[in-house]
Amino acid sequence: MVGDIAKRWKELSGNSKWKDLLDPLDLDLRRYILHYGDMAEVGYVAFNSDRRSKYVGDSCYTKEELFARTGYLKANPFRYEVTKYIYGTSSIRLPECFIIKSLSREAWNKESNWLGYIAVATDEGKKLLGRRDIVVAWRGTIQLYEWANDFDFPLESAVTVFPRANPNDEPRIANGWLSLYTSTDPRSRFDKTSAQEQVQGELKRLLELYKDEDITITLTGHSLGAVMSILSAADFLHNEWPKITPSLQHRLSCVTVFAFGSPRIGDRSFKRLVESLEHLHILRVTNVPDLIPRYPVFRFTDVGEELQINTLKSEYLKRSLNLGHFHNLEAYLHGVAGTQHNQGEFKLEINRDIALVNKGLDALEDKYLVPGHWWVLENKGMVQSDDGTWKLNGDRSKNKQEEEEEENNCKFP
Amino acid sequence: MVGDIAKRWKELSGNSKWKDLLDPLDLDLRRYILHYGDMAEVGYVAFNSDRRSKYVGDSCYTKEELFARTGYLKANPFRYEVTKYIYGTSSIRLPECFIIKSLSREAWNKESNWLGYIAVATDEGKKLLGRRDIVVAWRGTIQLYEWANDFDFPLESAVTVFPRANPNDEPRIANGWLSLYTSTDPRSRFDKTSAQEQVQGELKRLLELYKDEDITITLTGHSLGAVMSILSAADFLHNEWPKITPSLQHRLSCVTVFAFGSPRIGDRSFKRLVESLEHLHILRVTNVPDLIPRYPVFRFTDVGEELQINTLKSEYLKRSLNLGHFHNLEAYLHGVAGTQHNQGEFKLEINRDIALVNKGLDALEDKYLVPGHWWVLENKGMVQSDDGTWKLNGDRSKNKQEEEEEENNCKFP
Repeated sequence: MVGDIAKRWKELSGNSKWKDLLDPLDLDLRRYILHYGDMAEVGYVAFNSDRRSKYVGDSCYTKEELFARTGYLKANPFRYEVTKYIYGTSSIRLPECFIIKSLSREAWNKESNWLGYIAVATDEGKKLLGRRDIVVAWRGTIQLYEWANDFDFPLESAVTVFPRANPNDEPRIANGWLSLYTSTDPRSRFDKTSAQEQVQGELKRLLELYKDEDITITLTGHSLGAVMSILSAADFLHNEWPKITPSLQHRLSCVTVFAFGSPRIGDRSFKRLVESLEHLHILRVTNVPDLIPRYPVFRFTDVGEELQINTLKSEYLKRSLNLGHFHNLEAYLHGVAGTQHNQGEFKLEINRDIALVNKGLDALEDKYLVPGHWWVLENKGMVQSDDGTWKLNGDRSKNKQEEEEEENNCKFP
Repeated sequence: MVGDIAKRWKELSGNSKWKDLLDPLDLDLRRYILHYGDMAEVGYVAFNSDRRSKYVGDSCYTKEELFARTGYLKANPFRYEVTKYIYGTSSIRLPECFIIKSLSREAWNKESNWLGYIAVATDEGKKLLGRRDIVVAWRGTIQLYEWANDFDFPLESAVTVFPRANPNDEPRIANGWLSLYTSTDPRSRFDKTSAQEQVQGELKRLLELYKDEDITITLTGHSLGAVMSILSAADFLHNEWPKITPSLQHRLSCVTVFAFGSPRIGDRSFKRLVESLEHLHILRVTNVPDLIPRYPVFRFTDVGEELQINTLKSEYLKRSLNLGHFHNLEAYLHGVAGTQHNQGEFKLEINRDIALVNKGLDALEDKYLVPGHWWVLENKGMVQSDDGTWKLNGDRSKNKQEEEEEENNCKFP
């Protein structure tokens, strides 16, 4: 599971752009990518996407219980503590799958969604990881592929995020990405500040806290979350990096993005801006049959290094023409575990549990006897009251309810 | 909830064929029908129908925990103890939905399925019910309607079940029903005896046990289970009733069937045989838009009294052309709670929880904010092991596993 990660973390984090590690795909790098992929997956499985729930759009679990309730804790040896939840909104109208709104009039929040979390390695985690690692894990949106045909969002100047960009080469990115990253909702108690401000603020706070240790920032996400991870990493290096002390610059040796199934973000000027950020390492993992990384097609370009996997070659999976089977994050992680170089046959180099593939898909061959779409709350969150009737409130963990009540008590004493 | 059931149970059990109770539908009779419907529903929600599970075709729960784990206990004041599980097989090839077979080579049982249970009122239950009630609750098959077009099973003589029938008017029933009711599987440890023998044997045992009390036998089931409940009731009255003592005949004042959404069972000779059984009371509940009670169309006839409900009139439900929305047992029970006489408008006379309708359907209007198909085990029975991997074994309750292991220990010491 752990391999030589504690020794090789600089190389694995891309300080030489993963030269000679991708083909054939290095075994420790597989482990490393899977680790960050698992952290991105936590965002999916904790997210409440049931529009009939009052709590749609939020995490089902508190920061404290997030890793335990999502299966991460038992499956993964690297220990982190979640320090902040990221919330976001959009000032322009986005497809429903970006910001999910409740059908309930008693919704906890009309406009904001939980977009991910920030976590920092514990002392125990640091031992296995070789340094104090700060992770920004962005939640994706599984339905993004349903929008693939329309999501040619107009390009818009990103100069608000990158004010020091060359005025003659102004970066432009899709207005949908920009809006989600920078919008605020003054009515909300979660995102009076934008996702941008929440993330950059927390990074500054944590860097200050751990400025005397070897430290890294690793950003990860899948699909829409991959976009946000690249954008927030570039933002950090463009705006914050120049302001930090040389000593901390020395301590902070890598800012790395593991981006799974990322659609394209911006134009050639944006690409040039990203390439100018010398401390930024981006590994874009793409699955050969997944179409999302090829969208939007015109006027957009790819950034970072690319690692191609190919789940079409996996004999564990059903033959399928369902784009969801190719774009799903767990399918990607299965591909990372088993894809061979030079178009070789698929073989699981890492003994990753194949059952995970079916959490949100029915993609595994039936002979493995794993139910399809099996990641579900008991009775989808319906809980029986003492009077025998059933109500949708189990989608909120008990701790989460208490946290919520405490917050409400503080606000409205 | 309880109404005057303890006083009116003879009338409610049909000793005057529900005369003047059906239109308008008596309030206590609504409660009474819902109670037995709930007992039939227990068979559905406890049944493991996941073909990828080793335990497909069995009850997920032990006899002791059946009512608690299926939500019955909190919602229903009438207390029973489950005394026997019914298992069955078929010697002719039936549609997959009748006997579900596992995809696993390690299946608990290749040929048999759990077909229902027998329960007897506890002393506490007897107080509310007015007498010692023995219930035979047959599990249905939710997919029956998918077979409606083909299930014109050939009629076959039922003289093996009804040996004393008039030889010039030999009853004939669908060979599928007959096979399921009478087949044995000598290789199985569950149904070395047929469902018929299991049920009739247990009824004799319980009658002997409670012969000095006021006692009733109530049989209930939905769809295929409704067929079995009518068949087993007729079997009892044809074969066992003549053998019991006059004193017990006096004590046993009603043998009643509440049959929900029953397809037709046999021909006119079968109907004449059923009508000749004077102590048998059958109430067939049919939903106007449900087509199953009209099948098979030719050479088959209806038996018993009919109570028509009409869920098309319910404003709680989405407009739908999905036959499942009309045939589903919880939809029937919603209809029993709210159907008005003389084609009046729908109005819930019993404050039955509407959320129940969506247990196995997505039929409720969205505004009620109840997820569709919400009756699911947590993670569909996938359970994480300490090593982080996921396995399908949570579909077996812990107690059930222990019960199983004990049985195995006894058999193979």
